[in-house]
Amino acid sequence: MRDSFHEDLDKISEQLVEMTRLAGSAMSRATTALLDADLKMAESVIAADEKIDALRQELDERSIDLLARQQPVATDLRMVVTAMRMSSDLERMGDLARHVAKVARLRYPDSAIHPVMRSTVLEMGQVAERIVAKAGSVIAGKDIATALALERDDDEMDRLHRDIFNMLMDGEWKYGTEAAVDATLVSRYYERFADHAVSVARRVVYLVTGEYRSEGDLDGEEL
Amino acid sequence: MRDSFHEDLDKISEQLVEMTRLAGSAMSRATTALLDADLKMAESVIAADEKIDALRQELDERSIDLLARQQPVATDLRMVVTAMRMSSDLERMGDLARHVAKVARLRYPDSAIHPVMRSTVLEMGQVAERIVAKAGSVIAGKDIATALALERDDDEMDRLHRDIFNMLMDGEWKYGTEAAVDATLVSRYYERFADHAVSVARRVVYLVTGEYRSEGDLDGEEL
Repeated sequence: MRDSFHEDLDKISEQLVEMTRLAGSAMSRATTALLDADLKMAESVIAADEKIDALRQELDERSIDLLARQQPVATDLRMVVTAMRMSSDLERMGDLARHVAKVARLRYPDSAIHPVMRSTVLEMGQVAERIVAKAGSVIAGKDIATALALERDDDEMDRLHRDIFNMLMDGEWKYGTEAAVDATLVSRYYERFADHAVSVARRVVYLVTGEYRSEGDLDGEEL
Repeated sequence: MRDSFHEDLDKISEQLVEMTRLAGSAMSRATTALLDADLKMAESVIAADEKIDALRQELDERSIDLLARQQPVATDLRMVVTAMRMSSDLERMGDLARHVAKVARLRYPDSAIHPVMRSTVLEMGQVAERIVAKAGSVIAGKDIATALALERDDDEMDRLHRDIFNMLMDGEWKYGTEAAVDATLVSRYYERFADHAVSVARRVVYLVTGEYRSEGDLDGEEL
Protein backbone atom coordinates (compact mmCIF):
# COMPACT_ATOMS: atom_id res chain seq x y z
CA MET A 1 0.00 0.00 0.00
CA ARG A 2 1.16 3.51 -0.81
CA ASP A 3 1.63 5.92 2.05
CA SER A 4 -0.28 9.16 2.29
CA PHE A 5 2.51 11.23 0.69
CA HIS A 6 2.70 9.04 -2.37
CA GLU A 7 -1.07 8.89 -2.65
CA ASP A 8 -1.10 12.69 -2.77
CA LEU A 9 1.68 12.63 -5.32
CA ASP A 10 -0.29 10.17 -7.47
CA LYS A 11 -3.25 12.52 -7.35
CA ILE A 12 -1.04 15.43 -8.45
CA SER A 13 0.33 13.32 -11.28
CA GLU A 14 -3.22 12.45 -12.39
CA GLN A 15 -4.13 16.13 -12.44
CA LEU A 16 -1.08 16.92 -14.56
CA VAL A 17 -2.13 14.24 -17.04
CA GLU A 18 -5.63 15.72 -17.06
CA MET A 19 -4.08 19.12 -17.84
CA THR A 20 -2.24 17.63 -20.85
CA ARG A 21 -5.57 16.23 -22.04
CA LEU A 22 -7.29 19.60 -21.72
CA ALA A 23 -4.43 21.51 -23.36
CA GLY A 24 -4.34 19.00 -26.22
CA SER A 25 -8.08 19.21 -26.76
CA ALA A 26 -7.91 23.02 -26.66
CA MET A 27 -5.15 23.21 -29.28
CA SER A 28 -6.86 20.65 -31.49
CA ARG A 29 -10.11 22.59 -31.43
CA ALA A 30 -8.29 25.91 -31.84
CA THR A 31 -6.68 24.56 -35.02
CA THR A 32 -10.08 23.58 -36.39
CA ALA A 33 -11.50 26.99 -35.43
CA LEU A 34 -8.61 28.67 -37.20
CA LEU A 35 -8.67 26.66 -40.42
CA ASP A 36 -12.46 26.43 -40.76
CA ALA A 37 -13.21 29.91 -39.42
CA ASP A 38 -15.48 28.27 -36.86
CA LEU A 39 -16.53 31.02 -34.46
CA LYS A 40 -18.45 28.77 -32.10
CA MET A 41 -15.48 26.48 -31.66
CA ALA A 42 -13.14 29.44 -31.15
CA GLU A 43 -15.43 30.74 -28.40
CA SER A 44 -15.55 27.35 -26.74
CA VAL A 45 -11.74 27.14 -26.64
CA ILE A 46 -11.49 30.62 -25.16
CA ALA A 47 -14.09 29.80 -22.50
CA ALA A 48 -12.55 26.42 -21.64
CA ASP A 49 -9.20 27.93 -20.74
CA GLU A 50 -10.63 28.87 -17.34
CA LYS A 51 -10.86 25.19 -16.53
CA ILE A 52 -7.14 24.67 -17.16
CA ASP A 53 -6.32 27.74 -15.06
CA ALA A 54 -8.48 26.46 -12.21
CA LEU A 55 -6.90 23.02 -12.37
CA ARG A 56 -3.48 24.59 -12.20
CA GLN A 57 -4.43 26.60 -9.17
CA GLU A 58 -5.90 23.57 -7.44
CA LEU A 59 -2.79 21.56 -8.22
CA ASP A 60 -0.49 24.26 -6.88
CA GLU A 61 -2.50 24.62 -3.68
CA ARG A 62 -2.40 20.86 -3.24
CA SER A 63 1.37 20.90 -3.73
CA ILE A 64 1.96 23.68 -1.22
CA ASP A 65 -0.31 21.91 1.23
CA LEU A 66 1.67 18.71 0.69
CA LEU A 67 4.95 20.52 1.35
CA ALA A 68 3.57 22.00 4.55
CA ARG A 69 2.01 18.80 5.89
CA GLN A 70 4.58 16.21 4.86
CA GLN A 71 7.81 18.22 4.78
CA PRO A 72 9.36 16.03 2.10
CA VAL A 73 13.11 16.12 1.46
CA ALA A 74 15.46 14.94 -1.30
CA THR A 75 13.72 13.28 -4.27
CA ASP A 76 10.23 13.61 -2.78
CA LEU A 77 10.71 17.36 -2.39
CA ARG A 78 11.99 17.69 -5.94
CA MET A 79 8.96 15.79 -7.23
CA VAL A 80 6.55 18.26 -5.68
CA VAL A 81 8.51 21.30 -6.88
CA THR A 82 8.76 19.79 -10.36
CA ALA A 83 5.02 19.14 -10.43
CA MET A 84 4.43 22.84 -9.80
CA ARG A 85 6.72 23.74 -12.67
CA MET A 86 4.94 21.32 -14.97
CA SER A 87 1.56 22.77 -14.05
CA SER A 88 2.93 26.18 -15.01
CA ASP A 89 4.04 24.86 -18.42
CA LEU A 90 0.69 23.19 -19.03
CA GLU A 91 -1.29 26.24 -17.99
CA ARG A 92 0.75 28.27 -20.48
CA MET A 93 0.01 25.71 -23.19
CA GLY A 94 -3.68 26.32 -22.54
CA ASP A 95 -3.08 30.06 -22.93
CA LEU A 96 -1.38 29.49 -26.27
CA ALA A 97 -4.34 27.45 -27.54
CA ARG A 98 -6.59 30.31 -26.42
CA HIS A 99 -4.41 32.76 -28.37
CA VAL A 100 -4.81 30.70 -31.54
CA ALA A 101 -8.57 30.66 -30.99
CA LYS A 102 -8.57 34.43 -30.52
CA VAL A 103 -6.88 34.97 -33.86
CA ALA A 104 -9.56 32.74 -35.40
CA ARG A 105 -12.30 34.79 -33.74
CA LEU A 106 -10.76 38.09 -34.79
CA ARG A 107 -10.81 37.21 -38.50
CA TYR A 108 -14.22 35.53 -38.55
CA PRO A 109 -16.02 35.02 -40.97
CA ASP A 110 -12.73 34.75 -42.86
CA SER A 111 -10.04 32.27 -41.97
CA ALA A 112 -6.92 34.00 -40.61
CA ILE A 113 -4.82 31.47 -42.49
CA HIS A 114 -4.29 31.93 -46.21
CA PRO A 115 -4.89 28.74 -48.25
CA VAL A 116 -1.18 28.58 -49.23
CA MET A 117 -0.33 27.97 -45.56
CA ARG A 118 -3.27 25.80 -44.68
CA SER A 119 -1.51 22.43 -44.94
CA THR A 120 1.48 23.65 -42.91
CA VAL A 121 -0.73 25.00 -40.13
CA LEU A 122 -2.80 21.82 -40.16
CA GLU A 123 0.39 19.87 -39.65
CA MET A 124 1.44 22.19 -36.81
CA GLY A 125 -1.88 21.41 -35.14
CA GLN A 126 -1.30 17.68 -35.55
CA VAL A 127 2.22 17.86 -34.15
CA ALA A 128 0.86 19.90 -31.22
CA GLU A 129 -1.73 17.20 -30.49
CA ARG A 130 0.88 14.44 -30.70
CA ILE A 131 3.43 16.19 -28.55
CA VAL A 132 1.07 17.00 -25.70
CA ALA A 133 -0.34 13.45 -25.76
CA LYS A 134 3.22 12.18 -25.42
CA ALA A 135 3.85 14.60 -22.56
CA GLY A 136 0.85 13.02 -20.82
CA SER A 137 2.28 9.52 -21.35
CA VAL A 138 5.65 10.65 -20.07
CA ILE A 139 4.09 11.98 -16.86
CA ALA A 140 1.81 8.98 -16.37
CA GLY A 141 4.51 6.37 -16.94
CA LYS A 142 7.75 8.21 -16.09
CA ASP A 143 8.59 7.07 -19.57
CA ILE A 144 12.06 8.18 -20.74
CA ALA A 145 11.81 6.63 -24.21
CA THR A 146 8.67 8.63 -25.02
CA ALA A 147 10.34 11.75 -23.62
CA LEU A 148 13.09 11.34 -26.20
CA ALA A 149 10.61 10.65 -29.02
CA LEU A 150 8.84 13.84 -28.06
CA GLU A 151 11.98 15.86 -28.79
CA ARG A 152 11.72 14.73 -32.41
CA ASP A 153 8.17 16.07 -32.59
CA ASP A 154 9.55 19.38 -31.40
CA ASP A 155 12.16 19.31 -34.18
CA GLU A 156 9.29 18.73 -36.60
CA MET A 157 7.43 21.72 -35.15
CA ASP A 158 10.52 23.92 -35.49
CA ARG A 159 10.82 22.84 -39.13
CA LEU A 160 7.17 23.79 -39.80
CA HIS A 161 7.70 27.10 -38.01
CA ARG A 162 10.65 27.82 -40.31
CA ASP A 163 8.53 26.84 -43.32
CA ILE A 164 6.00 29.51 -42.36
CA PHE A 165 8.70 32.16 -42.04
CA ASN A 166 10.28 31.11 -45.31
CA MET A 167 6.93 31.58 -47.05
CA LEU A 168 6.62 35.05 -45.53
CA MET A 169 10.22 36.10 -46.09
CA ASP A 170 11.06 34.91 -49.59
CA GLY A 171 10.03 38.23 -51.11
CA GLU A 172 7.09 36.66 -52.95
CA TRP A 173 4.44 37.07 -50.26
CA LYS A 174 1.49 38.76 -51.94
CA TYR A 175 -1.40 38.14 -49.58
CA GLY A 176 -1.11 41.27 -47.51
CA THR A 177 0.41 42.40 -44.23
CA GLU A 178 -2.52 41.37 -42.06
CA ALA A 179 -2.24 37.74 -43.18
CA ALA A 180 1.54 37.89 -42.60
CA VAL A 181 1.13 39.26 -39.08
CA ASP A 182 -1.50 36.63 -38.23
CA ALA A 183 0.69 33.82 -39.57
CA THR A 184 3.71 35.12 -37.63
CA LEU A 185 1.84 35.08 -34.34
CA VAL A 186 -0.02 31.81 -34.89
CA SER A 187 3.16 30.02 -35.92
CA ARG A 188 4.93 31.29 -32.83
CA TYR A 189 2.06 30.07 -30.60
CA TYR A 190 2.34 26.53 -31.96
CA GLU A 191 6.09 26.56 -31.64
CA ARG A 192 5.96 27.74 -28.02
CA PHE A 193 3.25 25.15 -27.27
CA ALA A 194 5.68 22.43 -28.37
CA ASP A 195 8.53 24.00 -26.37
CA HIS A 196 6.49 23.79 -23.19
CA ALA A 197 5.66 20.13 -23.90
CA VAL A 198 9.39 19.45 -24.24
CA SER A 199 10.00 21.29 -20.99
CA VAL A 200 7.44 19.05 -19.23
CA ALA A 201 9.09 15.92 -20.61
CA ARG A 202 12.57 17.08 -19.63
CA ARG A 203 11.42 17.70 -16.09
CA VAL A 204 10.24 14.09 -15.84
CA VAL A 205 13.56 12.89 -17.28
CA TYR A 206 15.31 14.99 -14.67
CA LEU A 207 13.34 13.37 -11.86
CA VAL A 208 14.12 9.90 -13.17
CA THR A 209 17.76 10.34 -14.19
CA GLY A 210 18.90 13.45 -12.32
CA GLU A 211 19.86 15.12 -15.59
CA TYR A 212 18.16 18.23 -16.85
CA ARG A 213 18.71 19.67 -20.28
CA SER A 214 18.24 23.39 -19.95
CA GLU A 215 15.45 25.28 -21.61
CA GLY A 216 18.03 27.55 -23.15
CA ASP A 217 18.12 25.72 -26.44
CA LEU A 218 14.35 25.44 -26.80
CA ASP A 219 13.28 28.93 -27.68
CA GLY A 220 16.41 29.88 -29.52
CA GLU A 221 15.70 30.78 -33.10
CA GLU A 222 12.42 32.29 -34.13
CA LEU A 223 13.46 33.46 -37.54
CA MET B 1 19.11 39.66 14.71
CA ARG B 2 17.51 37.70 11.91
CA ASP B 3 17.38 33.95 12.18
CA SER B 4 19.01 31.68 9.66
CA PHE B 5 15.81 31.13 7.64
CA HIS B 6 15.21 34.83 7.19
CA GLU B 7 18.85 35.44 6.38
CA ASP B 8 18.55 32.89 3.58
CA LEU B 9 15.35 34.52 2.43
CA ASP B 10 17.05 37.92 2.37
CA LYS B 11 19.78 36.44 0.20
CA ILE B 12 17.16 35.03 -2.18
CA SER B 13 15.45 38.41 -2.31
CA GLU B 14 18.79 40.11 -3.14
CA GLN B 15 19.35 37.65 -5.97
CA LEU B 16 15.90 38.36 -7.37
CA VAL B 17 16.66 42.08 -7.34
CA GLU B 18 19.96 41.35 -9.08
CA MET B 19 18.01 39.43 -11.73
CA THR B 20 15.75 42.46 -12.34
CA ARG B 21 18.90 44.55 -12.79
CA LEU B 22 20.37 42.12 -15.31
CA ALA B 23 17.09 41.73 -17.22
CA GLY B 24 16.66 45.51 -17.35
CA SER B 25 20.19 46.06 -18.59
CA ALA B 26 19.74 43.32 -21.19
CA MET B 27 16.52 44.83 -22.57
CA SER B 28 17.95 48.34 -22.56
CA ARG B 29 21.01 47.22 -24.54
CA ALA B 30 18.86 45.05 -26.82
CA THR B 31 16.79 48.11 -27.69
CA THR B 32 19.93 50.06 -28.58
CA ALA B 33 21.23 47.13 -30.63
CA LEU B 34 17.91 46.97 -32.46
CA LEU B 35 17.52 50.68 -33.22
CA ASP B 36 21.18 51.39 -34.01
CA ALA B 37 21.90 48.07 -35.74
CA ASP B 38 24.74 47.58 -33.27
CA LEU B 39 25.99 44.04 -33.82
CA LYS B 40 28.51 44.07 -31.00
CA MET B 41 25.89 45.11 -28.51
CA ALA B 42 23.45 42.50 -29.81
CA GLU B 43 26.10 39.80 -29.34
CA SER B 44 26.82 41.01 -25.81
CA VAL B 45 23.12 40.77 -24.86
CA ILE B 46 22.88 37.26 -26.30
CA ALA B 47 26.02 36.14 -24.42
CA ALA B 48 24.96 37.77 -21.13
CA ASP B 49 21.73 35.77 -20.96
CA GLU B 50 23.71 32.83 -19.62
CA LYS B 51 24.39 34.82 -16.49
CA ILE B 52 20.68 35.32 -15.83
CA ASP B 53 20.02 31.63 -16.45
CA ALA B 54 22.80 30.67 -14.04
CA LEU B 55 21.50 33.04 -11.38
CA ARG B 56 18.06 31.54 -11.72
CA GLN B 57 19.41 28.04 -11.30
CA GLU B 58 21.43 29.05 -8.26
CA LEU B 59 18.42 30.74 -6.75
CA ASP B 60 16.20 27.72 -7.34
CA GLU B 61 18.73 25.35 -5.81
CA ARG B 62 19.04 27.64 -2.81
CA SER B 63 15.26 27.67 -2.46
CA ILE B 64 14.94 23.88 -2.61
CA ASP B 65 17.78 23.56 -0.14
CA LEU B 66 16.01 26.01 2.15
CA LEU B 67 12.77 24.01 1.94
CA ALA B 68 14.63 20.80 2.77
CA ARG B 69 16.67 22.20 5.66
CA GLN B 70 14.18 24.52 7.29
CA GLN B 71 10.84 22.92 6.45
CA PRO B 72 8.98 26.22 6.49
CA VAL B 73 5.19 26.31 6.73
CA ALA B 74 2.45 28.91 6.18
CA THR B 75 3.71 32.33 5.01
CA ASP B 76 7.38 31.31 5.11
CA LEU B 77 6.68 28.39 2.79
CA ARG B 78 4.73 30.60 0.42
CA MET B 79 7.58 33.09 0.31
CA VAL B 80 10.03 30.46 -0.87
CA VAL B 81 7.63 29.03 -3.47
CA THR B 82 6.83 32.54 -4.69
CA ALA B 83 10.55 33.37 -5.01
CA MET B 84 10.93 30.39 -7.32
CA ARG B 85 8.06 31.63 -9.46
CA MET B 86 9.56 35.10 -9.62
CA SER B 87 12.92 33.71 -10.70
CA SER B 88 11.12 31.90 -13.51
CA ASP B 89 9.47 35.17 -14.65
CA LEU B 90 12.78 37.04 -14.51
CA GLU B 91 14.66 34.34 -16.39
CA ARG B 92 12.02 34.53 -19.10
CA MET B 93 12.43 38.32 -19.26
CA GLY B 94 16.11 37.74 -19.96
CA ASP B 95 15.14 35.36 -22.78
CA LEU B 96 12.89 38.01 -24.30
CA ALA B 97 15.70 40.58 -24.27
CA ARG B 98 17.88 37.98 -25.99
CA HIS B 99 15.17 37.48 -28.62
CA VAL B 100 15.12 41.21 -29.37
CA ALA B 101 18.91 41.16 -29.69
CA LYS B 102 18.69 38.19 -32.06
CA VAL B 103 16.35 40.07 -34.38
CA ALA B 104 18.86 42.95 -34.34
CA ARG B 105 21.69 40.55 -35.22
CA LEU B 106 19.70 38.87 -37.98
CA ARG B 107 19.12 42.14 -39.86
CA TYR B 108 22.58 43.63 -39.35
CA PRO B 109 23.91 45.85 -40.96
CA ASP B 110 20.35 47.13 -41.41
CA SER B 111 18.08 48.00 -38.52
CA ALA B 112 15.17 45.56 -38.22
CA ILE B 113 12.96 48.49 -37.29
CA HIS B 114 11.69 50.77 -40.03
CA PRO B 115 12.13 54.51 -39.24
CA VAL B 116 8.34 55.01 -39.07
CA MET B 117 8.28 52.75 -36.00
CA ARG B 118 11.49 53.89 -34.42
CA SER B 119 10.01 56.26 -31.86
CA THR B 120 7.36 53.72 -30.79
CA VAL B 121 9.94 50.97 -30.29
CA LEU B 122 12.23 53.38 -28.45
CA GLU B 123 9.36 54.11 -26.10
CA MET B 124 8.70 50.38 -25.63
CA GLY B 125 12.34 50.00 -24.60
CA GLN B 126 11.99 52.84 -22.10
CA VAL B 127 8.81 51.43 -20.61
CA ALA B 128 10.52 48.02 -20.35
CA GLU B 129 13.42 49.59 -18.43
CA ARG B 130 11.05 51.44 -16.11
CA ILE B 131 8.83 48.49 -15.41
CA VAL B 132 11.63 46.09 -14.53
CA ALA B 133 13.30 48.71 -12.31
CA LYS B 134 9.98 49.06 -10.49
CA ALA B 135 9.73 45.29 -10.17
CA GLY B 136 13.13 45.39 -8.44
CA SER B 137 11.92 48.07 -6.02
CA VAL B 138 8.76 46.11 -5.32
CA ILE B 139 10.80 43.01 -4.42
CA ALA B 140 13.37 44.92 -2.37
CA GLY B 141 10.85 46.96 -0.40
CA LYS B 142 7.69 44.78 -0.49
CA ASP B 143 6.28 47.99 -1.85
CA ILE B 144 2.59 47.79 -2.77
CA ALA B 145 2.29 51.36 -4.06
CA THR B 146 5.03 50.81 -6.64
CA ALA B 147 3.42 47.49 -7.58
CA LEU B 148 0.25 49.40 -8.49
CA ALA B 149 2.20 52.08 -10.39
CA LEU B 150 3.85 49.32 -12.37
CA GLU B 151 0.48 48.19 -13.68
CA ARG B 152 0.13 51.59 -15.37
CA ASP B 153 3.45 51.07 -17.14
CA ASP B 154 2.05 47.80 -18.41
CA ASP B 155 -1.03 49.63 -19.73
CA GLU B 156 1.36 51.98 -21.52
CA MET B 157 3.21 49.02 -23.04
CA ASP B 158 -0.07 47.50 -24.23
CA ARG B 159 -0.96 50.82 -25.86
CA LEU B 160 2.39 50.94 -27.69
CA HIS B 161 1.95 47.30 -28.74
CA ARG B 162 -1.44 48.21 -30.23
CA ASP B 163 0.14 51.21 -31.98
CA ILE B 164 2.58 48.87 -33.71
CA PHE B 165 -0.23 46.58 -34.86
CA ASN B 166 -2.31 49.52 -36.02
CA MET B 167 0.59 50.70 -38.18
CA LEU B 168 0.89 47.23 -39.67
CA MET B 169 -2.81 46.60 -40.12
CA ASP B 170 -4.22 49.85 -41.46
CA GLY B 171 -3.77 48.70 -45.04
CA GLU B 172 -1.15 51.37 -45.73
CA TRP B 173 1.95 49.38 -44.74
CA LYS B 174 4.36 49.65 -47.64
CA TYR B 175 7.70 48.62 -46.15
CA GLY B 176 7.56 44.94 -46.95
CA THR B 177 6.61 41.70 -45.25
CA GLU B 178 9.97 41.12 -43.61
CA ALA B 179 9.78 44.40 -41.72
CA ALA B 180 6.19 43.59 -40.72
CA VAL B 181 7.15 40.15 -39.39
CA ASP B 182 10.09 41.59 -37.45
CA ALA B 183 7.94 44.32 -35.93
CA THR B 184 5.25 41.79 -34.97
CA LEU B 185 7.72 39.61 -33.08
CA VAL B 186 9.69 42.43 -31.48
CA SER B 187 6.53 44.15 -30.29
CA ARG B 188 5.30 40.92 -28.77
CA TYR B 189 8.63 40.41 -26.97
CA TYR B 190 8.39 43.82 -25.31
CA GLU B 191 4.78 43.26 -24.37
CA ARG B 192 5.53 39.87 -22.81
CA PHE B 193 8.51 41.36 -20.98
CA ALA B 194 6.16 43.84 -19.31
CA ASP B 195 3.63 41.07 -18.54
CA HIS B 196 6.26 39.12 -16.62
CA ALA B 197 7.23 42.24 -14.66
CA VAL B 198 3.57 42.65 -13.67
CA SER B 199 3.45 39.02 -12.68
CA VAL B 200 6.48 39.51 -10.39
CA ALA B 201 4.86 42.54 -8.77
CA ARG B 202 1.55 40.75 -8.27
CA ARG B 203 3.31 37.88 -6.54
CA VAL B 204 4.80 40.32 -4.04
CA VAL B 205 1.39 41.90 -3.51
CA TYR B 206 0.00 38.44 -2.90
CA LEU B 207 2.61 37.73 -0.24
CA VAL B 208 1.89 41.01 1.51
CA THR B 209 -1.89 41.14 1.20
CA GLY B 210 -2.91 37.55 0.48
CA GLU B 211 -4.62 38.67 -2.71
CA TYR B 212 -3.47 37.51 -6.12
CA ARG B 213 -4.80 38.91 -9.37
CA SER B 214 -4.61 36.14 -11.90
CA GLU B 215 -2.35 36.25 -14.89
CA GLY B 216 -5.35 35.56 -17.06
CA ASP B 217 -5.90 39.19 -17.95
CA LEU B 218 -2.26 39.91 -18.73
CA ASP B 219 -1.66 38.18 -22.03
CA GLY B 220 -5.16 38.56 -23.34
CA GLU B 221 -5.22 40.59 -26.52
CA GLU B 222 -2.35 40.60 -28.91
CA LEU B 223 -4.17 42.07 -31.85
